[in-house]
Amino acid sequence: MRVLTRDAAAHVDREITVMGWAHRLRELGAISFVLVRDRSGMIQVVFEGKAGFTHESVISVRGTVRRNEKAPGGFEIAAAAFDVLALADSELPLPVNGDPDKVSLDALLDNRMISLRMPRIRSIFRVQSTIIKAFAESLRGLDFTEIKTSKLVGSGTEGGTGLFTVEYFDGKVFLAQSPQFYKQALVSSGMERVFEIGAAYRAEKHDTPRHLNEYVSLDVEMAFIQSEHELMDLELGILKSVFAALRAENAEDLAVFGASLPDDAAIDRIPRVGYEEAKDIISASGGKKVFDINPEGERVLCDWAREKHGVDAAFVNAFPRKKRPFYAFPDGLKTMSFDLLFRGLEITTGGRRINEYAMLLDALPKFGLTPEAMGAYMDIFRCGCPPHGGFAIGLERLTQKILGLHSVKEASLFPRDRKRTTP
Amino acid sequence: MRVLTRDAAAHVDREITVMGWAHRLRELGAISFVLVRDRSGMIQVVFEGKAGFTHESVISVRGTVRRNEKAPGGFEIAAAAFDVLALADSELPLPVNGDPDKVSLDALLDNRMISLRMPRIRSIFRVQSTIIKAFAESLRGLDFTEIKTSKLVGSGTEGGTGLFTVEYFDGKVFLAQSPQFYKQALVSSGMERVFEIGAAYRAEKHDTPRHLNEYVSLDVEMAFIQSEHELMDLELGILKSVFAALRAENAEDLAVFGASLPDDAAIDRIPRVGYEEAKDIISASGGKKVFDINPEGERVLCDWAREKHGVDAAFVNAFPRKKRPFYAFPDGLKTMSFDLLFRGLEITTGGRRINEYAMLLDALPKFGLTPEAMGAYMDIFRCGCPPHGGFAIGLERLTQKILGLHSVKEASLFPRDRKRTTP
Repeated sequence: MRVLTRDAAAHVDREITVMGWAHRLRELGAISFVLVRDRSGMIQVVFEGKAGFTHESVISVRGTVRRNEKAPGGFEIAAAAFDVLALADSELPLPVNGDPDKVSLDALLDNRMISLRMPRIRSIFRVQSTIIKAFAESLRGLDFTEIKTSKLVGSGTEGGTGLFTVEYFDGKVFLAQSPQFYKQALVSSGMERVFEIGAAYRAEKHDTPRHLNEYVSLDVEMAFIQSEHELMDLELGILKSVFAALRAENAEDLAVFGASLPDDAAIDRIPRVGYEEAKDIISASGGKKVFDINPEGERVLCDWAREKHGVDAAFVNAFPRKKRPFYAFPDGLKTMSFDLLFRGLEITTGGRRINEYAMLLDALPKFGLTPEAMGAYMDIFRCGCPPHGGFAIGLERLTQKILGLHSVKEASLFPRDRKRTTP
Repeated sequence: MRVLTRDAAAHVDREITVMGWAHRLRELGAISFVLVRDRSGMIQVVFEGKAGFTHESVISVRGTVRRNEKAPGGFEIAAAAFDVLALADSELPLPVNGDPDKVSLDALLDNRMISLRMPRIRSIFRVQSTIIKAFAESLRGLDFTEIKTSKLVGSGTEGGTGLFTVEYFDGKVFLAQSPQFYKQALVSSGMERVFEIGAAYRAEKHDTPRHLNEYVSLDVEMAFIQSEHELMDLELGILKSVFAALRAENAEDLAVFGASLPDDAAIDRIPRVGYEEAKDIISASGGKKVFDINPEGERVLCDWAREKHGVDAAFVNAFPRKKRPFYAFPDGLKTMSFDLLFRGLEITTGGRRINEYAMLLDALPKFGLTPEAMGAYMDIFRCGCPPHGGFAIGLERLTQKILGLHSVKEASLFPRDRKRTTP
């Protein structure tokens, strides 16, 4: 019966079997030390003579657990017998037991099948798994239904730019930029509250530490709201749940990155700053009037929020109409929309959507759109749609900012950018 | 403060506000009855005089709850005041309060934005949401990590057939048929146990009640197994968890379809039939020797299992090598692979995979493949990969068979088939 390395300490002076990868080998002639890595952690195994296998070989070892305060974790296994389940080549593309920070990002991604073995990198994706879980659980607890919508669409939600084309039998379709229209259809179906965890695609040529061409969008949409403020309230609750889950389940992973998370009180302090006021803050900080909020402005706003409100995050709301898609619910010349900036990066965009058919008919031509071109989307509103809104959180960006990663690409298992389509 | 219709009964003789859709209207001159639908159910609201709005209009009604045994559910609301939040067009593309079985599948899908409002159809997707949840929870409870892998890949996992091509900047990529290679990379990373809930694409021209060109694949992969039997055991546990969750959370939805679910004892009785024996059973049943297991054969096998084992499901294992992909782990001329047939339909394919590098080098040319063409996939095995295997459950097929739907397309929110790419 296999025992996980993290549980070995409960079996002192008894014989157990562990299975895993030879993470680090030291052969000293009469004796060899092998650090065996499994999904739960690592333990030192002591072999008589040479180990006779290579780094990253997968082994099954039977032996007696004993205390040794010099061993990592304070315990080790004295091997009585072992099998090599898979012998690794002596030439590895990357030193799996090395520090990923000493390897270039390109090398980590070019050799992704192997760099994923580096414990520090696996921590990133354990954290990501918990984010997904906590996001879903917190919404299910509020009576949200999880949906899965098509990623092959006839047209884009924000117009025809930035779309990847798919050859679909004898025709063409596009990869969805977001499940926006589908979320709205489901809210208006009477489901009222839906969320989706799914891929989103942007055919943008940006190649920056904040862009991915394929990312995971954590999408939320709910009916019977009055304004964007209920959505911001909802997002605060989700973030509290996510951070609580990470503290409970991923303390070691967070420690690897020296990551700390805002507590509930700090989250409640996240300011809500109107777009115009936000520009004033940025202008005042730089001593130069700004006419837009660019990535540098997002960093400035978070710095301001940290100093003034003690939290490295800020909502920006009340964006002007021309800055938002046609479906943003107007409020004079502004819209009931918001972004959430977290640690200097926009991680969420959302807002109340237009739900009244007449208002939508009025809005479309202002954006160069026609009801005919919108197709079945118009049915949602023609047939009775409640006030509603929603938002989307970028999973990789949230992961990046939680752990303090330099590039969002580090937070994607197999990132896709303009040049990278493999592995 | 809004009260959900399902909670109205707790407020008898008190005034509450409900919000929802005018599901059914009866205007009798001096009085009108409106069945108001929200996410939780429906309640009858009584208005003095004409209601003055249309079917599917979204309203907010304030009124007093009273008992009325003639009302659906035994309670109704006497309206004191109401607002029309969104007036619906009097011409709906479908009668939302009608029976979807009286509308053709094409009409339901052509008008999907509105057919999703039909309560019976919403039940399908509430069930699906619970399946997703229970699948994820049962695996997390066994120390599995949820992963999200790219759906844009350089080549297919099973060779070059059946792939959709994506124009990707100046080059081309394909939509992933499965996360097979990525699951294997993550198992071999030391993560050991992973699952993914994600889209999968098959560019097959089939247009049948069992095919979708885009579907949601519930993928599982785990290390340190001996054979396909541990995988079948794991799947039995997942099915028990899914069915238990559905019984607990979706009893009404199941009742709408008259759906019953096998209990744990029945699931434990699911037989494991070798491929050759399965063909013999089908041959004996039809009185004619068969050389393959086609959809009719799958139905025959489930009939046989129901009669012989009291469960409408069967595993088929030990498929011959030429029936499975190159990565199936060989066992003589057979493979350690399996399918699960449930109520006459294959809902799962899986098996142990080749993990030894030398064995893989031996297998590839038998399938017309070369190590060079496999690219980074080979790194997984060259660098030490434990014995492992996994499987994938088709979410829509499982939903279809749980509810007894005629077509798998009914179990997809926005199905994609050869001709259908909108809405």
